[in-house]
Amino acid sequence: MNLTQLLNDMTLDEKIDQFIQLATFFYAGAETQGEITGPMEDMGISQEIIRNSGSVLGASGAKEVKNIQKVHLENNRLGIPLLMMADIVHGFKTIFPVPLAIGCSWDEELAERSAEIAAKEAAVSGVHVTFAPMVDLVRDPRWGRVMETTGEDPYLNSRFAKAFVRGFQGDDLTNDTDRVAACVKHFAAYGAPEGGRDYNTVNMSERELREYYLPAYKAALDEGCEMVMTAFNTVDGIPATGNKKLMRDLLREEWDFNGVMISDWGAVKELIPHGIAADESEAAFKAINAGVDIEMMTACYVKNLKDLVEAEEVKEELIDEAVIRILELKEKLGLFENPYRGADEQLEKEVIMSTEHREVAYELATKSCVLLKNEEILPLQKDKKIALIGPFANNGDILGQWSWQGSKEESVKIYEGMTNKVGIANVLTARGSGIDSATDDQFAEAVKIAKKADVIVLALGEKSEMSGEAGSRSNIRLPDVQLKLIEEMKKLNKPIVSVLINGRPLDLHGVYEESDGILEGWFPGTEGGRAIADLLYGDVNPSGRLTMSFPYNVGQVPVYYNHYNTGRPKDAPDAQDRYVSQYLDIPNEPLFPFGFGLSYTNYQYSDLTLSTDHLTANDEIEVSVKVKNVGSTKGEEVVQLYVRDLVGEVVRPLKELKAYQKIKLNPGEEREITFSLTEEQLRYYHADLSFESDTGKFKVFVGPNSRECLEQSFDLRK
Amino acid sequence: MNLTQLLNDMTLDEKIDQFIQLATFFYAGAETQGEITGPMEDMGISQEIIRNSGSVLGASGAKEVKNIQKVHLENNRLGIPLLMMADIVHGFKTIFPVPLAIGCSWDEELAERSAEIAAKEAAVSGVHVTFAPMVDLVRDPRWGRVMETTGEDPYLNSRFAKAFVRGFQGDDLTNDTDRVAACVKHFAAYGAPEGGRDYNTVNMSERELREYYLPAYKAALDEGCEMVMTAFNTVDGIPATGNKKLMRDLLREEWDFNGVMISDWGAVKELIPHGIAADESEAAFKAINAGVDIEMMTACYVKNLKDLVEAEEVKEELIDEAVIRILELKEKLGLFENPYRGADEQLEKEVIMSTEHREVAYELATKSCVLLKNEEILPLQKDKKIALIGPFANNGDILGQWSWQGSKEESVKIYEGMTNKVGIANVLTARGSGIDSATDDQFAEAVKIAKKADVIVLALGEKSEMSGEAGSRSNIRLPDVQLKLIEEMKKLNKPIVSVLINGRPLDLHGVYEESDGILEGWFPGTEGGRAIADLLYGDVNPSGRLTMSFPYNVGQVPVYYNHYNTGRPKDAPDAQDRYVSQYLDIPNEPLFPFGFGLSYTNYQYSDLTLSTDHLTANDEIEVSVKVKNVGSTKGEEVVQLYVRDLVGEVVRPLKELKAYQKIKLNPGEEREITFSLTEEQLRYYHADLSFESDTGKFKVFVGPNSRECLEQSFDLRK
Repeated sequence: MNLTQLLNDMTLDEKIDQFIQLATFFYAGAETQGEITGPMEDMGISQEIIRNSGSVLGASGAKEVKNIQKVHLENNRLGIPLLMMADIVHGFKTIFPVPLAIGCSWDEELAERSAEIAAKEAAVSGVHVTFAPMVDLVRDPRWGRVMETTGEDPYLNSRFAKAFVRGFQGDDLTNDTDRVAACVKHFAAYGAPEGGRDYNTVNMSERELREYYLPAYKAALDEGCEMVMTAFNTVDGIPATGNKKLMRDLLREEWDFNGVMISDWGAVKELIPHGIAADESEAAFKAINAGVDIEMMTACYVKNLKDLVEAEEVKEELIDEAVIRILELKEKLGLFENPYRGADEQLEKEVIMSTEHREVAYELATKSCVLLKNEEILPLQKDKKIALIGPFANNGDILGQWSWQGSKEESVKIYEGMTNKVGIANVLTARGSGIDSATDDQFAEAVKIAKKADVIVLALGEKSEMSGEAGSRSNIRLPDVQLKLIEEMKKLNKPIVSVLINGRPLDLHGVYEESDGILEGWFPGTEGGRAIADLLYGDVNPSGRLTMSFPYNVGQVPVYYNHYNTGRPKDAPDAQDRYVSQYLDIPNEPLFPFGFGLSYTNYQYSDLTLSTDHLTANDEIEVSVKVKNVGSTKGEEVVQLYVRDLVGEVVRPLKELKAYQKIKLNPGEEREITFSLTEEQLRYYHADLSFESDTGKFKVFVGPNSRECLEQSFDLRK
Repeated sequence: MNLTQLLNDMTLDEKIDQFIQLATFFYAGAETQGEITGPMEDMGISQEIIRNSGSVLGASGAKEVKNIQKVHLENNRLGIPLLMMADIVHGFKTIFPVPLAIGCSWDEELAERSAEIAAKEAAVSGVHVTFAPMVDLVRDPRWGRVMETTGEDPYLNSRFAKAFVRGFQGDDLTNDTDRVAACVKHFAAYGAPEGGRDYNTVNMSERELREYYLPAYKAALDEGCEMVMTAFNTVDGIPATGNKKLMRDLLREEWDFNGVMISDWGAVKELIPHGIAADESEAAFKAINAGVDIEMMTACYVKNLKDLVEAEEVKEELIDEAVIRILELKEKLGLFENPYRGADEQLEKEVIMSTEHREVAYELATKSCVLLKNEEILPLQKDKKIALIGPFANNGDILGQWSWQGSKEESVKIYEGMTNKVGIANVLTARGSGIDSATDDQFAEAVKIAKKADVIVLALGEKSEMSGEAGSRSNIRLPDVQLKLIEEMKKLNKPIVSVLINGRPLDLHGVYEESDGILEGWFPGTEGGRAIADLLYGDVNPSGRLTMSFPYNVGQVPVYYNHYNTGRPKDAPDAQDRYVSQYLDIPNEPLFPFGFGLSYTNYQYSDLTLSTDHLTANDEIEVSVKVKNVGSTKGEEVVQLYVRDLVGEVVRPLKELKAYQKIKLNPGEEREITFSLTEEQLRYYHADLSFESDTGKFKVFVGPNSRECLEQSFDLRK
């Protein structure tokens, strides 16, 4: 397709209409169709605009998508196909664990495979673009969308950003119709809302933005991610969606991003309540100047850009550039040749929720759960009588937010997973309580059941709506009624294992002391119950490691491993009792640190060795360590390497993750793991925003988590 | 004194030794003297350095100060007198309410008077410089030092910063020996430590720094404040004390500050643990280059600057400039003429804790307390039997931190204040509990006493060490035992009035619902019990208004009135149920907003009128409002004026305080209050850090607090 020619053939209206993205119900051919007297009119959208529009939000299902596209092509003057976009975040119909859990697997290959499967199920359903990966760095568990990210570390987030992009897009997006284009979000720093309240103000210096928040977006783009979605929040006082410095100057100019940029839902019009645009025209003006191509679900562009161009306030070249980007993406997806691309009703039946896909969901779930505590109670013996109690004992709400195509009914519940394994005789069950309420009868029944058992397994947590978008909580404990349920169970003097289903790091007081074992299950997805049962009974050895700190309590937030020393560190040898950086009432350390997770075996670290005691820009240091499985169970260990730059021009974190390897070890097996470190990995943003390293002393830490490491040091020299 | 000549006469050692500031115990003539084998040797400080040194920390008491100075002048080769500096924050011996309480008075004249009295008591005791005012803007009540500031608003903080400086320094510092030089602190943004944990990392953009955090420091300097103290924290990654951009470029160059800059305690050496200096030499290098003149309590300068000068790494001009600044301050204080300045043992006896001074402390305390709730229980009737119960019922710990010269014994306790007024027969009392522990007997006694009374007055709170420096708490409720005490009292079905003694906004759940009346007493100072009794019994009508929001709970922190709208405000007419900026479990609003406070009368606002509907750079708008006392008690009302810039280049706060007046109204009296607004008041920092206004629509709000206002609007035109 000659896109330049096509552009020349387009009227200004046709160009601008490419920019609007509306949901399927506006489209003829969709199962639910909008009425011209309904929402379209409210928004000021005509049938003409719909006919000229360029993309559709939330379309899926091969039949429906094909219908929409067919009708569209019949009506569109130039026969420009629609882009079908949807949120395929952690699976389409086969639901994988939530991204925060996937991060805890530290297994990029499996993460990539999960994205590949999500892409395939979506592609056969007619989807061309997914609004993923979401790679926002997070430090505040009050924010509900922490479940959508891989956590608090810029390096790990970057690795997973790349893995997800590879999985969604593959190597040849044009010809591999099992893949979809990826759209990294939310640019930028959406994960840092003040007070953990969704959509709230974000404020940080540009240096901090570049050091922590931008790397994962950049990594996704380096991997070829086709699209970028704007964030709802302000970045230094200007909403991202109208932030020229962030979008035009940094993303498009400095990073040379030439793909399509889309606003988040309604975010262009939201420039008005934000207070940087007086009306929809000014909102359109600011967003198009910032570099936003597609406006999702509001109509500021289609109603105002033409006037702005005619008044010479917006240059038509700006419009043309945006149109070309959209057309290029359509071309890259092969839509001019085959506007129906991968949509295939027959394949839908074969591919979606296939045994193969569910197996990967199972495997990823086993690797995503994190064993937080184990006082010689896990794994459960299969001949012991278990009382499985709690609101998640037999509950399909284990998929988490952003699983709109997922089926709770077709998910494996915990009860199902356990009884499939050991039969129903050894698993008694009772609900005990709802998520946040209970009757006396429920408690009484739970007590009655629990009394008959050897071990009580409590399946507790947050329902999915308690996290996700707009799912911010000021209280990050389990709901009171569930803490009460634990108390009641504790009175029975039996071992208690708590299995947690939730979308954020919780303050686990009220669970931690009372439980002999705790398995953090997150929202484990379609095969969750099966994975959890295998972990509880030891058929699989837990290997998940936290990628976000579990705070001691909400009053400690934000708490994250890669913090600074301050001038008065609490643990300094000459520290005073009072005049150090601390709380009077709690420790500085989180309850569980980044990288933490237990196993049914033990790994012994020894012989941390550096190949040289100094490094220059032209060579590298080999860092080797011996890791031995000194227990009697085979398992997987995540060997983590951190560095510390002892003296910087600006303060440096006490630890920064620079590498990791997930390895398998049989009982008694020892392996030497080797990492290499180069000067490039030691660079950081200086006060003038230059990205460079400082000569001087560095520490290297290797260990099973960010708290317990062996250490060595070296010098970086010119 | 010819300072240039003096400088020329000084050796390099003598110059550099002017920079060290040590506590009195290093000095001959002090009551407690250091031993050369002790701390001085640890720090690498010789007797020679002490003899050459330029200032002393924490000296007070005319006799001792004179002794120290006398010995010093005998030993100092050039006869350069010592500067005596100390922390006189909210009173010297006569203790005023803590600054957060003083802010709540909204009474700058009285604040100024309190500083004048503090200065006078300090001056006769030999102090030349006070390390005050502390004007750090705060939004996080976890931080213990919120008690030292006037709160969350840059405008109000600036007004009080000026008032304190006027009070300390007067108009003629040289000749008015009843005054002391002021040292504004902590430059900059010390009030924004992450997680509310003292000394912790501060991160914000320069725009936010300039808009919110810098104005109060600037206001103090505009008022002629002689000195500046550095902050402990980092400012955009570089500790303030070594931050050349902040100190040399902004404070000294852009703001043209030529006074003495002192580090906070040990902050020069703390550049090492911060990780921007490898050793004491580098710490000295960075601090002197940043513009820090005096190094408090560490010896990086005296041990390293000479070598650095001789190695030509530090220019001797830099040393000379710093020495001149110190000598100029001594000259300004008249110390070359009279090195003993105001120190006077006779005056000490007459002036300190004089009746006049205590009266001002009393008056300020009555104006600082804030009535938070009153369900027709207050004022107390004098003939009713009161049970005064709680750890603060009869407790002298009502002075708060930074009252090292204050005397708990000589303070008026609440019991004393009440019984002085109504006699002992009508005030039964029991401790009930300690601050955070209680015996069964204490509870039982409290119940027994309470049963005999008509009204229970609970005196609850935090002991002074629970706030102040290094007094951060993750839990900002009252200690559990006190909440338990309330519960026990509540069972008696009698009216409960809670009087709170504390240094931070608390989460008042557990107090709020259970109490019929709540009086926030803060740490009210020497005359606290008398003031509280007068307020409780209605001899004085409460007029304090909060200058820092009381959060709904700690999970809502930070919460402050001058926040932004976001793109999805909860209260918008078209707001969805879920997808708005909110918490699932609590409101967005604090429990008590900025500006809030009740009275024993009611004020009615009406007829908010603007003199014109538009403003230009050359004129002003008169904003008038009628305020009427519609109750039967005379009182004082704080009439508050806020503006909102509806559309900015960067997002603007929903409300910004721009003016206020505290007025007295008799029952039935109505007054018209007039404010004028100019274009200058509407300027703010744009993305490029230019400070200017935007044309367009503005709202004006006038009311009794930041939540309940009348409103009008106007246009700003070119």
